[in-house]
Amino acid sequence: MPRKIELFVPAITPFAADLSVDTERFVANAHRLIANGAHGLAPFGTTSEANSLSVAERMEALDALIDSGLDASLLIPGTGCCNAAETIALSAHATQRGCRGVLMLPPFYYKGVSDEGVFNAYAQVIEAVGPDLRVYLYHIPQMSGVAITLPLIERLIARFGDQIAGLKDSSGKWDNTAAVIAAFPQIDTYSASESMIPQNIAAGGAGCISASLNVNPTGIRALVDGLNGPNHDALHAQVSAVRTIFEGIPLIPAIKAAIAAQTGEVDYARVRPPFVDLGDAHADAVAEAVRIAGPQRPS
Amino acid sequence: MPRKIELFVPAITPFAADLSVDTERFVANAHRLIANGAHGLAPFGTTSEANSLSVAERMEALDALIDSGLDASLLIPGTGCCNAAETIALSAHATQRGCRGVLMLPPFYYKGVSDEGVFNAYAQVIEAVGPDLRVYLYHIPQMSGVAITLPLIERLIARFGDQIAGLKDSSGKWDNTAAVIAAFPQIDTYSASESMIPQNIAAGGAGCISASLNVNPTGIRALVDGLNGPNHDALHAQVSAVRTIFEGIPLIPAIKAAIAAQTGEVDYARVRPPFVDLGDAHADAVAEAVRIAGPQRPS
Repeated sequence: MPRKIELFVPAITPFAADLSVDTERFVANAHRLIANGAHGLAPFGTTSEANSLSVAERMEALDALIDSGLDASLLIPGTGCCNAAETIALSAHATQRGCRGVLMLPPFYYKGVSDEGVFNAYAQVIEAVGPDLRVYLYHIPQMSGVAITLPLIERLIARFGDQIAGLKDSSGKWDNTAAVIAAFPQIDTYSASESMIPQNIAAGGAGCISASLNVNPTGIRALVDGLNGPNHDALHAQVSAVRTIFEGIPLIPAIKAAIAAQTGEVDYARVRPPFVDLGDAHADAVAEAVRIAGPQRPS
Repeated sequence: MPRKIELFVPAITPFAADLSVDTERFVANAHRLIANGAHGLAPFGTTSEANSLSVAERMEALDALIDSGLDASLLIPGTGCCNAAETIALSAHATQRGCRGVLMLPPFYYKGVSDEGVFNAYAQVIEAVGPDLRVYLYHIPQMSGVAITLPLIERLIARFGDQIAGLKDSSGKWDNTAAVIAAFPQIDTYSASESMIPQNIAAGGAGCISASLNVNPTGIRALVDGLNGPNHDALHAQVSAVRTIFEGIPLIPAIKAAIAAQTGEVDYARVRPPFVDLGDAHADAVAEAVRIAGPQRPS
């Protein structure tokens, strides 16, 4: 059976004027993303400013998503915190709510730690949450400072079997993604850039979890559906054009500014510290990304 | 009035066999450190594995310290988390308990953020906690990935005055420490290495907050008290010898192993993931550090 190819959006977290989580917009945006081509969501990822949210805020927002009727099996929320107690609480909550799995950062404050230490950290959480937990490992060393190495993945699979469900490779290094897919064909390996979708799928990967899916779900879905078809090159060019724009400006504020432009709701543009609202900076670039992404269906 | 020179220990956090916080040893160790020459404690720092503790664990342990009779004005607990809600909760708690101030990391997940964003993050916490809060800024870019720059310090002091009480420079770069002391003589600037104590004090700094104070409080206190006296060179050599040993082995597990050796209580050696217990590795180095540090008074 060929692997199912899917697109999960690390959905942005909208904030109200007082910087509290704007749950209503969070839910509306989730339905918009699904309506426009995303297969599912990976909320509370890096792009979601998850690490600027408290545990309680994350749980409440996840509850609101699921209570709104979104199928929990389409959700892979981020749950990895620096300390085990919070990672366990978030992972147990997501598991109890029926989520497909959780996208789990390793503990990310301490640098230069060993594979054995990171293995122990994951093991502690998996054992505490129990056998229903499915873990998608999150490799983003440029933010976390802690790599998910191949020997670590091997050791985790040897110990926990299919509880290790997948990996998101945000390193931007295709050679690493290819090595993970080749060594561990039994797990779902996602690229973090839709520009790598053709390579990812050809190699046996599972698709993509990408920041720009927030803005360009239709275009990226069209690429996946039309892969190697007559429009392949044009579809790939559209996807790469949007991505290239965001690579040149502050990513998360720009993604939120673009959603504000797409929806006509300026409140989407707000970020929490340590980010700064994009404001009028890069307005032309954002407008161009929105133009290329094309019209969005309402949720 | 000459500046008061002080030594604050980023006291280690002992764990029980089930990896819960061993509050009894935490309190006993704090009293031992004060009895052996430390002026105060900066619990829940990097060396304390603070980022492997939950908010509730930190609050309970701080309460236990103060309830044990330790003067809260000798305490500068670490409170900086990735998200504002937790940093505010910990900082408000420490302030209400009468601590001298708090050692506050900037939000440390997101990298490449601007001074304006980091300023906004600190401002949000200070405004939420209120005028009784005193902040010691924590510059440890090799762990946090977010530098406390001179323009940022200037802006924070301009806005919050003496609520910005000090800075700990863990960068290991003396030029940076000297620049902070020269530019902001009104705040207390601590070095993170006792090997820099002579330079720090000569330049107008406030002393030291150092991992190896956990093991060598007597020696480091003797250096401060005997600065430029007849035994200066021997005292400085003792302090540097201990520090040099720890620089060559995994710092936090080794510090804890050394305390286990000093106290005869092996439980002190336990670490949480992502660290790994030192075990028998580097036993000779640890024994040598303990030998040079000399006998410890019981608390």
